[in-house]
Amino acid sequence: MEIERKFLIKEMPDLQKYPSKELEQGYLCTSPTVRIRREDDEYYLTYKSKSKDDIAREEYNLPLTKESYEHLIKKADGNVIRKRRYLVPAGKGEGGRDLTAEIDVFAPPFAPLVLAEVEFTSVEEAKAFEKPQWMGDDVSSDRRYYNSYLSTVDAESIIDMFNT
Amino acid sequence: MEIERKFLIKEMPDLQKYPSKELEQGYLCTSPTVRIRREDDEYYLTYKSKSKDDIAREEYNLPLTKESYEHLIKKADGNVIRKRRYLVPAGKGEGGRDLTAEIDVFAPPFAPLVLAEVEFTSVEEAKAFEKPQWMGDDVSSDRRYYNSYLSTVDAESIIDMFNT
Repeated sequence: MEIERKFLIKEMPDLQKYPSKELEQGYLCTSPTVRIRREDDEYYLTYKSKSKDDIAREEYNLPLTKESYEHLIKKADGNVIRKRRYLVPAGKGEGGRDLTAEIDVFAPPFAPLVLAEVEFTSVEEAKAFEKPQWMGDDVSSDRRYYNSYLSTVDAESIIDMFNT
Repeated sequence: MEIERKFLIKEMPDLQKYPSKELEQGYLCTSPTVRIRREDDEYYLTYKSKSKDDIAREEYNLPLTKESYEHLIKKADGNVIRKRRYLVPAGKGEGGRDLTAEIDVFAPPFAPLVLAEVEFTSVEEAKAFEKPQWMGDDVSSDRRYYNSYLSTVDAESIIDMFNT
């Protein structure tokens, strides 16, 4: 089960201090989600069930080979999404555990889009989360910020989207 | 974990007595296996890891909607396979439990191919299995009888294959 919240960025942290990975991903379908992703030199097929409440959904992360990834990415619908993901501290969760935000810095055509996601171990922890001051609006329920949605839009509507 | 053995048929049981389903399936990739399947009016995406010993491998069976199935089947490589699957008793397993053979009767271009598969709960049970007299050769290790292989061959080589 994946439980997470997504935020815009109000004030960008100094990302160069934090570990990062290069991500490339495409979608074979979006309801349920079947996604293929490269993370540096690791490859995965991910299945996500339909979300019931915009926070929690079932997720399976299954390994692919480089060859099967390259075969499957050709079958992706619409845009292949490229972004760099930074792992940045985001305060404390249940029992004082450290929370981490994944800050995704999108490459063209989605630049300058930047999103931060925090994963939780329970819905209670997700609801109790107090965002650091560098985080902006909560967009967990805004479908326009789903990567699966971004994979379907054309470059012009992307520019429109972030100017309104 | 899926543990199974596959057999040819020596003498066909009277299939009309047994419950059956109509199956249609295609492959998005084969190593690992990513398969989409319709079983009557249920739809699944199945992931199978690479097999280490031809008997056991990791398997995930994930639900799809009719719409996502119809979208994904267009992305399948090679042949879409159609067959009717009958569930037929196949003796006793560990602790006297009833074993069931899935007898797959393939539609063209694979007819008159028929295969029987038995699923086990342990490698020991699989090895101890005594086949009913209607079952023929064990072809568990013969890649030519993998459905994923059949999806890649052309109709002429199929005819050659079952005549040699």
